[in-house]
Amino acid sequence: MTLQDDAKRHLWMHFTRMSDTDVPVISRGSGPYVHDQHGKRYLDGLSGLFTSQVGHGRRELAEAAAKQASELAYFPLWSYAHPNAIELATRLAALAPADLNRVFFTTGGSEAVESAWKLARNYFKLTGEHGRYKVLSRDIAYHGTTMGALSITGLAEIKHPFEPLVPGSVRVPNTNFYRATEHGDSVERFGQWAADEIERAILREGPESVAAVFLEPVQNAGGCFTPPPGYFTQVRSICDTYGVLLVSDEVICAFGRLGHYFGSERYGYRPDIITFAKGVTSGYAPLGGMIASDRLMEPFTTGDSTFLHGITFAGHPVSTAVALANLDLFEKEGVLDNVRSNEAGFRTTLERLSDLPLVGDVRGAGYFYGIELVKDKETKESFTDEECERLLRGFLSHALFDAGLICRADDRGDPVIQLAPPLICTQEHFDEIEQILRSVLTEAATRI
Amino acid sequence: MTLQDDAKRHLWMHFTRMSDTDVPVISRGSGPYVHDQHGKRYLDGLSGLFTSQVGHGRRELAEAAAKQASELAYFPLWSYAHPNAIELATRLAALAPADLNRVFFTTGGSEAVESAWKLARNYFKLTGEHGRYKVLSRDIAYHGTTMGALSITGLAEIKHPFEPLVPGSVRVPNTNFYRATEHGDSVERFGQWAADEIERAILREGPESVAAVFLEPVQNAGGCFTPPPGYFTQVRSICDTYGVLLVSDEVICAFGRLGHYFGSERYGYRPDIITFAKGVTSGYAPLGGMIASDRLMEPFTTGDSTFLHGITFAGHPVSTAVALANLDLFEKEGVLDNVRSNEAGFRTTLERLSDLPLVGDVRGAGYFYGIELVKDKETKESFTDEECERLLRGFLSHALFDAGLICRADDRGDPVIQLAPPLICTQEHFDEIEQILRSVLTEAATRI
Repeated sequence: MTLQDDAKRHLWMHFTRMSDTDVPVISRGSGPYVHDQHGKRYLDGLSGLFTSQVGHGRRELAEAAAKQASELAYFPLWSYAHPNAIELATRLAALAPADLNRVFFTTGGSEAVESAWKLARNYFKLTGEHGRYKVLSRDIAYHGTTMGALSITGLAEIKHPFEPLVPGSVRVPNTNFYRATEHGDSVERFGQWAADEIERAILREGPESVAAVFLEPVQNAGGCFTPPPGYFTQVRSICDTYGVLLVSDEVICAFGRLGHYFGSERYGYRPDIITFAKGVTSGYAPLGGMIASDRLMEPFTTGDSTFLHGITFAGHPVSTAVALANLDLFEKEGVLDNVRSNEAGFRTTLERLSDLPLVGDVRGAGYFYGIELVKDKETKESFTDEECERLLRGFLSHALFDAGLICRADDRGDPVIQLAPPLICTQEHFDEIEQILRSVLTEAATRI
Repeated sequence: MTLQDDAKRHLWMHFTRMSDTDVPVISRGSGPYVHDQHGKRYLDGLSGLFTSQVGHGRRELAEAAAKQASELAYFPLWSYAHPNAIELATRLAALAPADLNRVFFTTGGSEAVESAWKLARNYFKLTGEHGRYKVLSRDIAYHGTTMGALSITGLAEIKHPFEPLVPGSVRVPNTNFYRATEHGDSVERFGQWAADEIERAILREGPESVAAVFLEPVQNAGGCFTPPPGYFTQVRSICDTYGVLLVSDEVICAFGRLGHYFGSERYGYRPDIITFAKGVTSGYAPLGGMIASDRLMEPFTTGDSTFLHGITFAGHPVSTAVALANLDLFEKEGVLDNVRSNEAGFRTTLERLSDLPLVGDVRGAGYFYGIELVKDKETKESFTDEECERLLRGFLSHALFDAGLICRADDRGDPVIQLAPPLICTQEHFDEIEQILRSVLTEAATRI
């Protein structure tokens, strides 16, 4: 049996149409590149899955993992602690804004989002506001796939097969200015409208029933919806007015993706909870968590009240060792500085693609971009489902991969190409991305 | 600042009363022993958290992690595969019973349980039985903490702070024969009654609404409730009669805990899905998953139907490399044989404790035991909540730890001491466990 046969027979892949014929097998990585089993090289334009901040094949991180695994490979955070978890919690608290000083570890992003919702519900039950259990989140936003996180997710298509889910999850509009149905002439007024919609949703549901609003600094699904100027300031103020917690879901946007340790820093807002995962270890080991404000932990610090929540592999000794070594690399190599110095170049390079007939919008921040594809640039007319199927799955995904670029052609909202290269990339990699996209999108235009 | 100060200030521990004064810091491990930061040695009677099958400090597993991390530390299973995930899926399928050939990876147990429920719901929607969304599980059974897995969990206390949860989760009795309210004179008739209760629950809910029954081979929470003779045969037959899936939640019971790769093997039943985690890597890296029957994947293998589910760090290259190396150790060192050869000795050694006034029941299988503590052995009278608090949290947990034994004094059901030592343990370790328990429980009896 070949690897290919075994894969088709035994490995149930994730979010993957299993009737597709071939399974691409990636077997090696080095810097911003990965190689398949036949030795062919690809530029990893998605950093694995928004994870590989410092690139592939970093011996420093492999050695940190091995050293820890041979000393103490595993011990739980249930009743006990281990030195790395303590050190990493302390370091993250120092990096996080304001009084976000309490770190609850998980193994990944879905569990981080689950933990934040569980904390919000528990906090309000302990502080006498028993009715606050609902959450607000944005249309098309992805927040994870375990049933709690999935309930918060705003993508009907990936929820429907698994319903009924957790009650109390309410949608508000996202900040897709390119498709603005209101105030399409002013991004400031559009942002104000989108924030006002959060207030209206709180009032409609009844403020006494709403626990939290979950927002990404830049929304990934749908293709990098950045926040309009003033949006987060207004949202923070609305949350304060109605006593609702603001959860910044930074599973993608933290650890340098936007040039800062936390995305909320870039946009100058103070969340009550930050959720993180992916980039904290540059993907070298599974880790996630939430950083909560002192205020939220307060009811749990006295008497017998306990946050009755836990995850076996959360804050794993090897994962936390890798995270500490990863943060060391961030400091030593100036990873944030690299993003800040080069992000304008990344934007300019991608914007060059705007001359192509299919490219409707180029949007994003830091090393995190979406390119929306349209049938007609003037009218912004999008593709039919059948055209999307033919364009994205039938052609683009394979053609980009064949041309040596790993990225995502996605139609969870309107069709977009998603890009999030490793944070060590420089202009030469942006040029390579642009050249491949230009060639493949040019051919795609002839196939519509 | 000391580690202790930092821990109290920044590390939010799991299922831990944070007002407790000291945080025990574990920093090193070797074989079945771990050491705290001051160098003091403890016998790890809980294998970390039912994870450390081959013991601590195994260089073979550390080296497997390092080798993989430096080659390809991360790549997702979304649209791509990597060689270890394929190889491990193939190997697990070969170990798993019957036609359980399809492996969906996660990072841990909660996500494995979530995945199984999501698959059950999705499968029935695709095969035309749209109404089947409910699950049955047993009273006091623990199945995880993310909101879907938590809904399946049968412990009211850890659900209540986070409700409302996912609709459609129904309780049936567990197999606690020591506390049998029916047929306390015959374990066979008790088992038949407990299985009949599953049938009655299916009929009460309406078979057309029930998707799956989730059962552990031996139920952990409550203290190792083993299945009565004939129980699983009857449950399998009930599931077949009503078209309900049988999910064997083997997050604890797989990978040698009961002397077999899978707990269902020991008790001779054929599940539709097995969930696993913990021991698959001996805890050296986060990994979990489900193994589903060919039948359940069938609707997803043709056309455009896709299981729209995924987890970023699931089937992580480093975790799957470690799992493969762990299975190599199982084979090379005869880990299953060690459990099978020594489990009778473990039982006999623990049963010696029955002469103590507090020891009401000693139950379990393999290297997995619970010792139920009672106030009166004749009447089986248990402790009041206040006595439990004083006995378990006030004395036993600390005294056992101080005496050099890591285990769990638990009162999620009736008060029990839980034991699950590494699978490399032999008689000398059982004797050490027995001596420490004898000494501490003897003192405890004088304090009630």
